[in-house]
Amino acid sequence: MNTKYSPGLHYLATLHTSDAEALKDMEAFKVWLSAEIQALGLTQAGEVWHQFPQAGFTAAVALTESHISIHTWPEFQLATFDVFLSNFSRRNNDTVLHLAQGIASFFNARLSNIHQIER
Amino acid sequence: MNTKYSPGLHYLATLHTSDAEALKDMEAFKVWLSAEIQALGLTQAGEVWHQFPQAGFTAAVALTESHISIHTWPEFQLATFDVFLSNFSRRNNDTVLHLAQGIASFFNARLSNIHQIER
Repeated sequence: MNTKYSPGLHYLATLHTSDAEALKDMEAFKVWLSAEIQALGLTQAGEVWHQFPQAGFTAAVALTESHISIHTWPEFQLATFDVFLSNFSRRNNDTVLHLAQGIASFFNARLSNIHQIER
Repeated sequence: MNTKYSPGLHYLATLHTSDAEALKDMEAFKVWLSAEIQALGLTQAGEVWHQFPQAGFTAAVALTESHISIHTWPEFQLATFDVFLSNFSRRNNDTVLHLAQGIASFFNARLSNIHQIER
């Protein structure tokens, strides 16, 4: 463990996809994300999943390493998401980038408005 | 309701305080934040609160307007937090700034590494 604070990488982006159905299918993304979190050795501390009726969904997954959030807008064929992992227990910057790329691939999306913030 | 996507303001910052006890007291912050959310007319869609043993806490509150998250590090006298509200139903930028200032005041903190992202 570190004795001084180690900033983690917070990655924010908007994803654009023609697959509006995927932006409505909360359950499919939830299954995929849970498997990813486990495969990457991250620790889930709790999660919120909220489906809007016949529309998108919003989710926030709290990790002991920080959080992942997504807000989908199928009516606009986009979603905003962010991945924030602290580097307290291990260096996680590559994991952040891997997860962000994985989310883009899951939705077969291109990304815009990308911000990578060390915090 | 809008017929085109209206970017919302996502405010990210690190807060620094000498009040390490407040950074451990999850319940006090939870009570304050819930009251704020209600007073500001925001709609909670779910929440995760995780207390680390004898240490800080991590929380993510999903709103129909997006989310609020906080990760406290009493051992370093700081916390990272973010407030993201969409402008879909109404313009919420001032509410984002109000909430961010309120969080800083709650912890009697100064802020650093502030980012305001339209997304």
